Amino acid sequence: MRAEKSLYQTLAEYSAEDFYPCHMPGHKRNMASGEMADFYRIDITEIDGFDDLHHAEGILRKAQERANRLYGAEETFFLVNGSTCGVLTAILAVTEPGEEILIARNCHKSVYHAAILQSLSVHYYQPQMIQEYDICDGVRAEAIEQLLDQYPGVKAVVITSPTYEGILSDIAGIARVVHKRGKVLIVDEAHGAHLGLAENLPEGAVAQGADLVIHSLHKTLPAMTQTALLHVNGDRVDRERLRRYLTMLQSSSPSYVLMASMDACVRFLEEEGAGRFVLFQEEYEKFCKKTAKCRRIKIGKMTSVSENYALADWDIGKILISVKNTKLNGKELGDILRERYHLEMEMAADTYALAIMTLMDTQEGWQRLADALCEIDDRIEKESCDRQDIRRITLPQVRSSMAAAFHGPREEISLREATGRIAADFLMLYPPGIPLAAPGEVLDEELIQKIEDSREKGLSLRGVSSEGRIPVVVEIP
Amino acid sequence: MRAEKSLYQTLAEYSAEDFYPCHMPGHKRNMASGEMADFYRIDITEIDGFDDLHHAEGILRKAQERANRLYGAEETFFLVNGSTCGVLTAILAVTEPGEEILIARNCHKSVYHAAILQSLSVHYYQPQMIQEYDICDGVRAEAIEQLLDQYPGVKAVVITSPTYEGILSDIAGIARVVHKRGKVLIVDEAHGAHLGLAENLPEGAVAQGADLVIHSLHKTLPAMTQTALLHVNGDRVDRERLRRYLTMLQSSSPSYVLMASMDACVRFLEEEGAGRFVLFQEEYEKFCKKTAKCRRIKIGKMTSVSENYALADWDIGKILISVKNTKLNGKELGDILRERYHLEMEMAADTYALAIMTLMDTQEGWQRLADALCEIDDRIEKESCDRQDIRRITLPQVRSSMAAAFHGPREEISLREATGRIAADFLMLYPPGIPLAAPGEVLDEELIQKIEDSREKGLSLRGVSSEGRIPVVVEIP
Repeated sequence: MRAEKSLYQTLAEYSAEDFYPCHMPGHKRNMASGEMADFYRIDITEIDGFDDLHHAEGILRKAQERANRLYGAEETFFLVNGSTCGVLTAILAVTEPGEEILIARNCHKSVYHAAILQSLSVHYYQPQMIQEYDICDGVRAEAIEQLLDQYPGVKAVVITSPTYEGILSDIAGIARVVHKRGKVLIVDEAHGAHLGLAENLPEGAVAQGADLVIHSLHKTLPAMTQTALLHVNGDRVDRERLRRYLTMLQSSSPSYVLMASMDACVRFLEEEGAGRFVLFQEEYEKFCKKTAKCRRIKIGKMTSVSENYALADWDIGKILISVKNTKLNGKELGDILRERYHLEMEMAADTYALAIMTLMDTQEGWQRLADALCEIDDRIEKESCDRQDIRRITLPQVRSSMAAAFHGPREEISLREATGRIAADFLMLYPPGIPLAAPGEVLDEELIQKIEDSREKGLSLRGVSSEGRIPVVVEIP
Repeated sequence: MRAEKSLYQTLAEYSAEDFYPCHMPGHKRNMASGEMADFYRIDITEIDGFDDLHHAEGILRKAQERANRLYGAEETFFLVNGSTCGVLTAILAVTEPGEEILIARNCHKSVYHAAILQSLSVHYYQPQMIQEYDICDGVRAEAIEQLLDQYPGVKAVVITSPTYEGILSDIAGIARVVHKRGKVLIVDEAHGAHLGLAENLPEGAVAQGADLVIHSLHKTLPAMTQTALLHVNGDRVDRERLRRYLTMLQSSSPSYVLMASMDACVRFLEEEGAGRFVLFQEEYEKFCKKTAKCRRIKIGKMTSVSENYALADWDIGKILISVKNTKLNGKELGDILRERYHLEMEMAADTYALAIMTLMDTQEGWQRLADALCEIDDRIEKESCDRQDIRRITLPQVRSSMAAAFHGPREEISLREATGRIAADFLMLYPPGIPLAAPGEVLDEELIQKIEDSREKGLSLRGVSSEGRIPVVVEIP
């Protein structure tokens, strides 16, 4: 039951009235505004009755409150600049320039960017690799505890759960050790906005006690790209300070189309979410059953991972299609799926391709994916030797602060000359944008080799030019 | 003539094919995704063939090049986080933490926010007020020259032109004095994206030699809210550094809907811009002729301003409707226009209301506005005494750095107790969000009085609670 009209309905009704806009936006809802005019019908600015995101007291406040009720958060903010700005805001709001922070190495680049903006001193938690699938394991609470004892100056801990590949950590356990020491726990749950929204889904980080949680609405739920939420709980975070950074890092002309999409998404979940998540689970299980027949291709699942790993669960929305031990690599698999089956994957790594599946996937979509995989599996041969993983386990040596290396004088040199030099920028495989090396870190031989390998395999690298050149810190002799 | 398909067309055609999305966004272009599903049809992520805004090499690079050709810039970047992120990026890219900057006091809050993020030491250019209309005058090149001689450590000069009210400065003259001293000129031309696009319009800041120019596409042109451009010219700006900040301050999942809207806008201007701007000018002139008959209401125009002022021109897209010397105030005028005539204004200040008119306004819209103003004018009486302007001319005394006051301990006190205390946050009339006081500045009696007056007049104030409380720096006795 809808107590109030949705933001979209309110905008659509307003647009159908005879109010004439002597204000921005410049398209004036005029249907002669070019090929996208239809999109402009509900695109307005902060006029009377439509509130102001940066100072929400009316319709936008209510829409945000609806979101915080859905997730059980004390307070929730709509983000029109993606999870990126949620992560930046969360970190900047709980640290002062130059302070210390503890982050999992497999965090998104926005976490690193926050560290640069605030000139933070960064300590890392290095996740293990799940060897079977060449992906990062979850975060171990005991290891976080140890690191916090080792670095008592740390103000906040930032981890990503679920990871891009769907690996969930034990947030409740991590929250306990972090809070015992009076620190703030920030969970980048960009890929887990659906968690906790139905009984068949694992609990989300808000329910498990994280102080600040960032959700991409668009990644796993029906909402427009670039929409996200920031949730806050408890009294460890200065909320006024949080609001100040939100105002700084987001457009002062936030899009009502994006905001209406967030509101529509929350309402859709309230009304149809639970039912759809049950169907989603059913389709997932049918898919697993079908693909269990594959002899070469293997689908990543919780039950196929050894108990020695730290992962708390594996999100059913992330279908990791492993081609390790076959003659195909992940990129080739992705290309075949696209070209032969018109199935576009989320990403391709060396030994796997990744599909993101959501409550909006159709039976036909699931079936096409399962059928295609079974057909491909029939044709591919097993390779005798194991493929070498291109991700890196050991942390590079840190020679200077990230901000100093990032801002200081740099030069571009060829990869071959770069061994022993200090990175001036990030080096990462994209997606998801997790650094192999960060500014200030030494480029050792092993790392250069991995980069060369990735280039040869045609994987998408950021931080290396197409000619194989890389920015390093200028060394004063 | 269209050499290539537009981004929108390419997206629409892709969506009509049978490619199935095993990737974000979570709505999967599924038309069962709730009330806004129609908007999701062309909303994709960085899949094969659709480039990556943060690393543009294909369709998005071409779209941005089309924009830079339109404006005659050397390089142009699409912004999905509004002019806000363009301003932040421009300032952060040309300064190091703690350096000095010279800004016009009537700059948008994002300029102040950049100063806080980078802990800059800020010097101000204080524009004169155009007494007749109670708005800020343009910026004088000679005064900038003097200030640069006085503060030789300044790295960059930031000015806003046109202002929110349409006042244009002599950018070419200012660029000369700034460049003579080897400094960078940043022009926040958020309200002037239409400048230079037709023969009847004044030249824009790109053509006049500014190094960095920020354009809101949505403010004066047919594009979605939150879309903007950043232009760069010459070799005074490190473009790699600029790109790094763009990547930091914008979502790593930029909206293809927003980007398609920017591309559509640029193409629309190429094809229809010149013709529409001529019609726009004609409508403007008809409007001026009609409203010239008003006895009380006065429309702000270049020709009605004394030669002693610095303004170089007055943008025809900003219709300043002055009710100074009448019994109405600007807010009352705005309310009458909304309630009686269904004309929604852009903003209402004390002595005027402001309408933004663009090339997309219809004949009917112009006529309704002119007719309404003539009718209202017939009914209002002239007031004997001049209204007192609530804006402030004198700069408050600066007691501490902006960043220190903003980040340090603060407390909320009532306005009446605040005289002599130091502001911990911004105090501004909104829109447009230009500070009356910035963090670190002393709240003197005159300022407190102006704030009290603004509250009484029902103007929209930011930084004062509805109970009249204001955050100030905690003073350690």
